[in-house]
Amino acid sequence: MAGNSFGQIFKITTFGESHGAAIGVIVDGCPSNIEIDLDFIQNELDKRKPGQSKITTQRKESDTCQILSGVFEGKTTGTPIAIIIPNEDQKSKDYDHNKDTFRPSHADYTYQTKYGIRDHRGGGRSSARETAARVAAGALAKLFLKQKGIDVIAHVSSVGFIDSPEVTTSNVDDFVKLRESNIVRCADAETADEMIHLIDSIRKEGDTIGGKVTCYIKNCPVGLGEPVFDKLHADLGKAMLSINAVHGFDYGSGFDGSTMRGSEHNDAFEAHENGKISTKTNYSGGVQGGISNGMDINFRVAFKPVATIMSNQETVNSAGEAAEIKGKGRHDPCVVPRAVAIVEAMAALVIADHYLRNQIYK
Amino acid sequence: MAGNSFGQIFKITTFGESHGAAIGVIVDGCPSNIEIDLDFIQNELDKRKPGQSKITTQRKESDTCQILSGVFEGKTTGTPIAIIIPNEDQKSKDYDHNKDTFRPSHADYTYQTKYGIRDHRGGGRSSARETAARVAAGALAKLFLKQKGIDVIAHVSSVGFIDSPEVTTSNVDDFVKLRESNIVRCADAETADEMIHLIDSIRKEGDTIGGKVTCYIKNCPVGLGEPVFDKLHADLGKAMLSINAVHGFDYGSGFDGSTMRGSEHNDAFEAHENGKISTKTNYSGGVQGGISNGMDINFRVAFKPVATIMSNQETVNSAGEAAEIKGKGRHDPCVVPRAVAIVEAMAALVIADHYLRNQIYK
Amino acid sequence: MAGNSFGQIFKITTFGESHGAAIGVIVDGCPSNIEIDLDFIQNELDKRKPGQSKITTQRKESDTCQILSGVFEGKTTGTPIAIIIPNEDQKSKDYDHNKDTFRPSHADYTYQTKYGIRDHRGGGRSSARETAARVAAGALAKLFLKQKGIDVIAHVSSVGFIDSPEVTTSNVDDFVKLRESNIVRCADAETADEMIHLIDSIRKEGDTIGGKVTCYIKNCPVGLGEPVFDKLHADLGKAMLSINAVHGFDYGSGFDGSTMRGSEHNDAFEAHENGKISTKTNYSGGVQGGISNGMDINFRVAFKPVATIMSNQETVNSAGEAAEIKGKGRHDPCVVPRAVAIVEAMAALVIADHYLRNQIYK
Amino acid sequence: MAGNSFGQIFKITTFGESHGAAIGVIVDGCPSNIEIDLDFIQNELDKRKPGQSKITTQRKESDTCQILSGVFEGKTTGTPIAIIIPNEDQKSKDYDHNKDTFRPSHADYTYQTKYGIRDHRGGGRSSARETAARVAAGALAKLFLKQKGIDVIAHVSSVGFIDSPEVTTSNVDDFVKLRESNIVRCADAETADEMIHLIDSIRKEGDTIGGKVTCYIKNCPVGLGEPVFDKLHADLGKAMLSINAVHGFDYGSGFDGSTMRGSEHNDAFEAHENGKISTKTNYSGGVQGGISNGMDINFRVAFKPVATIMSNQETVNSAGEAAEIKGKGRHDPCVVPRAVAIVEAMAALVIADHYLRNQIYK
Repeated sequence: MAGNSFGQIFKITTFGESHGAAIGVIVDGCPSNIEIDLDFIQNELDKRKPGQSKITTQRKESDTCQILSGVFEGKTTGTPIAIIIPNEDQKSKDYDHNKDTFRPSHADYTYQTKYGIRDHRGGGRSSARETAARVAAGALAKLFLKQKGIDVIAHVSSVGFIDSPEVTTSNVDDFVKLRESNIVRCADAETADEMIHLIDSIRKEGDTIGGKVTCYIKNCPVGLGEPVFDKLHADLGKAMLSINAVHGFDYGSGFDGSTMRGSEHNDAFEAHENGKISTKTNYSGGVQGGISNGMDINFRVAFKPVATIMSNQETVNSAGEAAEIKGKGRHDPCVVPRAVAIVEAMAALVIADHYLRNQIYK
Repeated sequence: MAGNSFGQIFKITTFGESHGAAIGVIVDGCPSNIEIDLDFIQNELDKRKPGQSKITTQRKESDTCQILSGVFEGKTTGTPIAIIIPNEDQKSKDYDHNKDTFRPSHADYTYQTKYGIRDHRGGGRSSARETAARVAAGALAKLFLKQKGIDVIAHVSSVGFIDSPEVTTSNVDDFVKLRESNIVRCADAETADEMIHLIDSIRKEGDTIGGKVTCYIKNCPVGLGEPVFDKLHADLGKAMLSINAVHGFDYGSGFDGSTMRGSEHNDAFEAHENGKISTKTNYSGGVQGGISNGMDINFRVAFKPVATIMSNQETVNSAGEAAEIKGKGRHDPCVVPRAVAIVEAMAALVIADHYLRNQIYK
Repeated sequence: MAGNSFGQIFKITTFGESHGAAIGVIVDGCPSNIEIDLDFIQNELDKRKPGQSKITTQRKESDTCQILSGVFEGKTTGTPIAIIIPNEDQKSKDYDHNKDTFRPSHADYTYQTKYGIRDHRGGGRSSARETAARVAAGALAKLFLKQKGIDVIAHVSSVGFIDSPEVTTSNVDDFVKLRESNIVRCADAETADEMIHLIDSIRKEGDTIGGKVTCYIKNCPVGLGEPVFDKLHADLGKAMLSINAVHGFDYGSGFDGSTMRGSEHNDAFEAHENGKISTKTNYSGGVQGGISNGMDINFRVAFKPVATIMSNQETVNSAGEAAEIKGKGRHDPCVVPRAVAIVEAMAALVIADHYLRNQIYK
Repeated sequence: MAGNSFGQIFKITTFGESHGAAIGVIVDGCPSNIEIDLDFIQNELDKRKPGQSKITTQRKESDTCQILSGVFEGKTTGTPIAIIIPNEDQKSKDYDHNKDTFRPSHADYTYQTKYGIRDHRGGGRSSARETAARVAAGALAKLFLKQKGIDVIAHVSSVGFIDSPEVTTSNVDDFVKLRESNIVRCADAETADEMIHLIDSIRKEGDTIGGKVTCYIKNCPVGLGEPVFDKLHADLGKAMLSINAVHGFDYGSGFDGSTMRGSEHNDAFEAHENGKISTKTNYSGGVQGGISNGMDINFRVAFKPVATIMSNQETVNSAGEAAEIKGKGRHDPCVVPRAVAIVEAMAALVIADHYLRNQIYK
């Protein structure tokens, strides 16, 4: 009810504030006997952690996670898995300026009004730091999906007006290698250079820029997703829209599909000798009637520019008076390079959850 | 779990197949002592019902609803409200062709694979007929929101490549009057004419076309939405993506926001003499940190073209053999004119639900 | 949230008031391809319906149910199954006396205070008539469990101070035959006679009497139940305590177990040649650590006497003034004969739900 | 779904194994601006902790809790409150004997069968150590209820066949003082002496004994509880039955009520000059139609004897062979003295949750 949980069967509950003792997550509903690879989990967290490169925030956090429960002799036991990530590099003083003043396009004003109290330090609970807990949980989901042969991969497909051309995802390892070969995490090397250049110049101006992440789910079996309200793409959409700074989601033909005709948009089925059925095109984005159809699932996530900028802005203080505020602290000029790990984590959680939901009636 | 329910407190569960005895909905959690205006509910259903004009399906259904419970002497009692809508104009024979053959870009194949059985007549449960039940429930949500002074209004903002210019929503009655003055439900009269012309010509070709609906929530108080996973826009997004044929959702600056800079995107706060706080711009779309900030909420919903077209298409039958299929029955050339009522209904349900969720701690 | 739903996967939502148009239930989450035997469902309803014998209420309702959705060509399709039972023999005038006066030990006062409105006719939503919807849903659960070889059987084990000796349940058909051979539904014929005599004499006095139902679940596989909060017996307990007039629940050794020593209470395990493991005694009642252990599950449910009696009682009216009230209408002198079907239905729903929950990780 | 959460609005999720790094709880949905009294929380934990007296287990754990999130400057912020309790005095070697052998009437066999793996040390997740997390969460619920003037108090009402006479609860402080004046936590001093004597002699025999806890909720407002499935007493029943070793629950007239007549059982209403309405008797136990009626709520909880006894018992090992096992480690001869705190905690959680559920429609 209070909105800190996600999923029905593979269910996570996150907790923690940016400048509290720790953030963390409980994963309840992870099947037993999954081998836990701590290095893999940490590696996922490293892709999201701050301080990775010149185009991310300079805040330094090792984001080292610790598993408190649910794992015995290296395997999950079917009981809740609690993971905590202690907060380390807190410069709470950096946030004195927003104790009584609302930062524009942040959550200061809405939290204060809703709760009558807020932990202003680093945005408290509204900080994107919360997403580290999601990445840790998503890593568990990925370990589960790996067993089933399902891959979840994403990359930065645009920064501002710079769009990546379509990239091939036929070889997952190659895709990831390409993506990880540059600090912006775009799987097209040439575009990556442009993106990095753009972000760096915007950073120097004390400004920020938006971007998009495109995600692919490979080898998803037919049948995932519940019809009507819990359509697979509806749950993916909610998952993505729950990530800080996300303003849009579309899948398959997406917004462009609204300009197309049925005769061009319909995906003709074809039968294969091995008994498999596929579609010749994939405007459906791997989902039909809310249920996966065995084709690659693909979707896009639009991120607005980071709200913290290094220039004076008009605002209001908690007494309701006009005020000025200027960004302090260490912030990202563009969130998408670090958001790739978050998008993958949330997608993995949705797929793991629906995989288990679909097991019920087997 | 099986995905036929939506909402946490103002919760609905829909049931029924296109060609079964009836469809319907249970609304559980509607507060007591709400006056029930049956004409209003029927009027909402009439906006969604088939057979309204030359640019909608010619299937004729009165979609007359009946309340079975939860209302006593014209008022809600706080107990579950069951509403049923009998199915009338069923031409099940029109669907013999898809009994053993999968219609492209429909849910025939995925339902068959998931459940091992399907009611093929009219698409069964996957039919958009299910959304009539949502509109009935949404009408109850609207009656509740009206008491709170909150309005939910939408119109068709694009059909194919024809886009409506921005329309004014400052006067809700005027907006609705304008929208209802044309059969495509666009609040800009000139654009409406173009849209109607386009849909009609596409219909004559036996083809279909996609479009977009834009929705506004007026007078939403500050504080609705739960941070982290149940952000207000994330629940709106899921609600919209759960509607048949929807392929995309964005709010506020939306996908365009991903191309903007923080310095242009940030919404400066301003204080007013009456103690109110507003923002000078509204790129946030009325939601900050997942919580409503008192500004108008706005979002867009992209619909793909209807999959049923009147030409031969390649497909596969249930034996896994290549087959051909051609649309039969009576179908919409474009769903958006009827989808306006569905978008409003789902938005009203989300807002009513979050309104009540926010009451908890008052 | 509003409390009209039960179950997580095999989930039911009931609706309807005693004197409204109909009562009913949505079963969401019933697996597909279950054959639906309408006669079986009606037969279950007949065991609960009023007017069965001289020791039940003389109200006459055929309680004929109608399935509106979710069944195609005699089989479930995996979509929601809506069942309605129209209300027939309503003598609403019988309830004019409690329109403004609160019947003692009924829900009139608490409903009025909670909701500020109530449908007083026949107790409205608080009427035990609601349990007919549960019995219909429970019949579906039983059809599902039959496929798995699991039986749920109950009988009246006490009325007032008359207790049945322990009965054998080794042959389910024999047990049911014995139970159904008398109108009080006790599987011990001699005790049944005494019970019937007692109820009949109490009925003539215009008074009522309480009793107990004992339930057995046969052939339940090992592994059902989720540890910690959703222990199998905890969900059974909640299910039973949610039935009108129930004041107590215990399982296995139950309340008597609180007087025992560990050395007598512990159930020694024994291995069998076929690889099965059982326990020599069954003080655990078939559940250990909240999870079924393969032994018969057994529990007892205590019902208070019906509150409606045919003599004058002191009470208060809605103006807060002292008043007198006397029972009118047609009421049961003792609920347990009809409650057997309700206990079985709720138990079947719990077991079906946990069966499916346990499938997730298979 | 996996059963480690409890509550709808004031919702808790516990985690942790007996011999893991820590146990803990997330409380999600606690209202903001509640003052957090750490001493109070610790004091509640101290009542449950092991090693309190000669009649409890000699295992020593300080059970010191740490709050990781959700509290800012001494007040709750409306965000999830994470509390951890590190495990200290672990003698895992004490449990080598049950690594491959199933302890009778424990959860070893059912966990192993359900999950295919188990943390055998101290019973892992099935250990009653998990209830410490509930007590910490329950302390938060009590702090919330205190603001509303609601008290939840319990005491040991029987050990074996020794029953306490009825005790007065009119003065809560006096009741608690009396109860805490003896190590068995019975509010009747004379009975307490007998109980202590019995437990101590049983402990010396290496045996164990069951008992009962009676709980009272004072000053509960009218209106708590949702009709039909989430009746207030049904949720209390589930809460109690979810506590380790509980085999029975009844409220108000309880099991005895099943022997009574309506004419003696009905609680006559009476009006008071201050406008209040009460009942002359309280066989309803403070709940009518599943909703609190403003009278004291009372219920009883039956605990079976602890399964770990210091004598040889027949059992089976994981290879399915006959085996012998004898209790090791440090165990309680009777759980009820420590269970008083758990019963109160769970009851407080139910009442806090239903208090907030009832706020929705205000």
